[in-house]
Amino acid sequence: MGPEEFRRAGHELVDWVADFRSGVAEHPVRSRVAPGDVARALPGAAPEQPEPLEALIADLEAVVVPGLTHVQHPSNFAWFPSNASLASVLGDLVAGGLGALGLSWQSAPALTELEQVVCDWARRLCGLSGAWQGTIGDGASTATLVALLVARERASGGSQRSGGLQACPAPLTVYCSADAHSSVTKAALLAGYGVANLRLVPVCQPGREMDTRALASLLGADQDAGRRPAAIVATSGTTATTAFDPLPEICALAKSYGAYVHVDAAMAGSAMLLPECRHLFEGIEEADSLCWNPHKWLGSILETSLLYTRDPAGLVGVMATDPSYLRSSRDGTVVQYRDWGLPLGRRFRALRLWALLRLEGAEAIRARLRRDLDNAQRLAALVGRTAGWSLLSPVQLQTLCLRHHPQGCDGEALDRHTLAWCEAVNASGRAHLTPALLDGRWMVRVSIGAEGTEWEHVEALWALMQAAAQASS
Amino acid sequence: MGPEEFRRAGHELVDWVADFRSGVAEHPVRSRVAPGDVARALPGAAPEQPEPLEALIADLEAVVVPGLTHVQHPSNFAWFPSNASLASVLGDLVAGGLGALGLSWQSAPALTELEQVVCDWARRLCGLSGAWQGTIGDGASTATLVALLVARERASGGSQRSGGLQACPAPLTVYCSADAHSSVTKAALLAGYGVANLRLVPVCQPGREMDTRALASLLGADQDAGRRPAAIVATSGTTATTAFDPLPEICALAKSYGAYVHVDAAMAGSAMLLPECRHLFEGIEEADSLCWNPHKWLGSILETSLLYTRDPAGLVGVMATDPSYLRSSRDGTVVQYRDWGLPLGRRFRALRLWALLRLEGAEAIRARLRRDLDNAQRLAALVGRTAGWSLLSPVQLQTLCLRHHPQGCDGEALDRHTLAWCEAVNASGRAHLTPALLDGRWMVRVSIGAEGTEWEHVEALWALMQAAAQASS
Repeated sequence: MGPEEFRRAGHELVDWVADFRSGVAEHPVRSRVAPGDVARALPGAAPEQPEPLEALIADLEAVVVPGLTHVQHPSNFAWFPSNASLASVLGDLVAGGLGALGLSWQSAPALTELEQVVCDWARRLCGLSGAWQGTIGDGASTATLVALLVARERASGGSQRSGGLQACPAPLTVYCSADAHSSVTKAALLAGYGVANLRLVPVCQPGREMDTRALASLLGADQDAGRRPAAIVATSGTTATTAFDPLPEICALAKSYGAYVHVDAAMAGSAMLLPECRHLFEGIEEADSLCWNPHKWLGSILETSLLYTRDPAGLVGVMATDPSYLRSSRDGTVVQYRDWGLPLGRRFRALRLWALLRLEGAEAIRARLRRDLDNAQRLAALVGRTAGWSLLSPVQLQTLCLRHHPQGCDGEALDRHTLAWCEAVNASGRAHLTPALLDGRWMVRVSIGAEGTEWEHVEALWALMQAAAQASS
Repeated sequence: MGPEEFRRAGHELVDWVADFRSGVAEHPVRSRVAPGDVARALPGAAPEQPEPLEALIADLEAVVVPGLTHVQHPSNFAWFPSNASLASVLGDLVAGGLGALGLSWQSAPALTELEQVVCDWARRLCGLSGAWQGTIGDGASTATLVALLVARERASGGSQRSGGLQACPAPLTVYCSADAHSSVTKAALLAGYGVANLRLVPVCQPGREMDTRALASLLGADQDAGRRPAAIVATSGTTATTAFDPLPEICALAKSYGAYVHVDAAMAGSAMLLPECRHLFEGIEEADSLCWNPHKWLGSILETSLLYTRDPAGLVGVMATDPSYLRSSRDGTVVQYRDWGLPLGRRFRALRLWALLRLEGAEAIRARLRRDLDNAQRLAALVGRTAGWSLLSPVQLQTLCLRHHPQGCDGEALDRHTLAWCEAVNASGRAHLTPALLDGRWMVRVSIGAEGTEWEHVEALWALMQAAAQASS
């Protein structure tokens, strides 16, 4: 496609996107398609001849849009926010247009240096010290895997450079809270530790933060049994309840056992932009690495995940390769991001976040985050004073965990009731919520923070939830 | 940013991108900035107040564009093609605009099913059988890592579900050609095998394909020594010379040792679209998994890497997690791509490739690939009949490996000469080439296939190379 055809089609699609976003609240939040509907509506083979843009747009409207659950909808309260700010979409459009190839500093100096600059901007906004250096990856799952690989190599004295993990004499162990994200287990398994060497540390009540006395016992028992504690993954803002593991105690224990500490702040990291929330992250300066995703609450589009390390040399030592076709006279004097993670080539990822921060400005972003925290507290107050409803954990951020208890309803009957009213809300198309298990029983999460969510949407949700719970009682 | 502001800014940036692409040939191919230039030109902190779009555009023009090596330039012959077709940029613009969140089928049914559909379109275009099922990842490095993790778990009987690789009794071994991409070594190391258990199999001359007699000896020796051959990574189109490892023999050996076969066709996979090239991939149907990157020669923008497997259940068995907050009533009846690789959440990746295939049509894409193959043969003919120049390997695809030999110049003097004339070409800004090592000596790769590269650009390169070689002799 030539530039002039792109110009024409691009204008049309920009209008299409603007119209879609203007009307996003008119769609049901949760898609109503059944499995296979989308695939059946599309031909089985690519066309031989070019199709007009109109054909593509027709399919977007008839097949794709109805086939999506709209997380940009102001009444999306499911999972965690996944804000694709339009400012960030513009940055990504430029990235695609430039078509830069991040293989090495030399292949795209501005791609590399803008990533350094933007990671540093984000670090300063978070109040993190200059000891942290960052890179942008696709998500927290990958960041945790990278961290656990670095920890594995540190604890094994660089096993990959000899016989590998399979030649490691003492079993290496990993620790995380029982409420840590499933990606921590996945990362530990993929890094080769084995589920038998992964310890899910119990949590305290009611805050559901990691019980550091239990952690201390597990570390001690493992060391006594000849195992070697390699890494602790602390979560700042768990998925179920946004609990914050106590970093000072965790980092102190890690230090005494020589273990690596990775902080998974995938969702909650955005709260570091707010000075009044930084106490939740106290002790983070003692960790070895941390990940937070501006593609969640902050508003950068997906696959903008920040991984910060205090030891770039340690990271590079595990990830570096040096093929001749990528060598250049600048080696040794520049950052080579291919040695900071799993992929070799990268897109111009920094532009998404750069455009967001410049076109919105930090002040407006902080104001939006505060709006969401405030809406969460207002809803919590309503829930707290309504008979039959209960909050299951402290509302530290923008997520509420709650249940409705009809009189005399508990155990599996309560589970059925919870899932029924939640499903009724979701089936209405007027809002979307995620149920989750807490200590083996279902509850419902209300995760506030879509970019367009104002108090009126939260209020409407509350009315909808009450009506649904009433109807299913 | 609201939809109307996006509309206005989007139109402006579409025009900016169209203008940039129209004029891309006017920039020096290789960036002339020095390390730190880009970072120094930008402020040290994010702005508090929003900036106008014009400020961003000014920095794009003054800082970013001069800070890039332009792989979309028609005289870019470095690395491998990295075509960011404008049709694909449009698909990605829609992806950003929709802001869909691929956590599960339920969170974005159309994102999941369009990925299935497009992977199947690409499979059919390649002439691959219906036994393959695909997914879209970020790149071949990740695909190889995924493959070697699956192979590790197959060979160890699912070690991750118990004591991990560290509890594995017999060392697991991995094989690839000495010319395999550096990402294979990286993946084997990260998967925990250890460099001591990675065998770099010698290559044959002159084709530089894996020597399968050497492979057979290594497999036999490892098995005799109590090690367990876990995986062979075969390359279809190596980075240095686009050599093709012999898949029938490799797969037969793998079968007799119970080893997994992954095919890395990252660059060359696009050639499967051409029936006349399919003989190069003979035997591929016997492999376990294969990766090719439409983001290279085909034209989809970056991070469109196809990973196909013949055993989705085996892949899912290694990658799956099942957190309660992601469960839905559709589980078991739909594909959950989070269980097909490393990341949990994903962008709407399929749109890039969908838009490319629909707006360009398969016929035009094949014609472009054939143009590049033809240009490579034409250049090879010129080089072959010019005194002092030699081709170092058969030109099987669109990459030439060559040297200029001044009389009496060899060894390190020849290396210096090679690097000098290549650097002179690159410093001119009029073309860009990558030097690489072949058997310990430098040569220069001419990788033809940027979307805009016509014969006139190749001819101009040839004149430039001859002049540069002459001048440095």
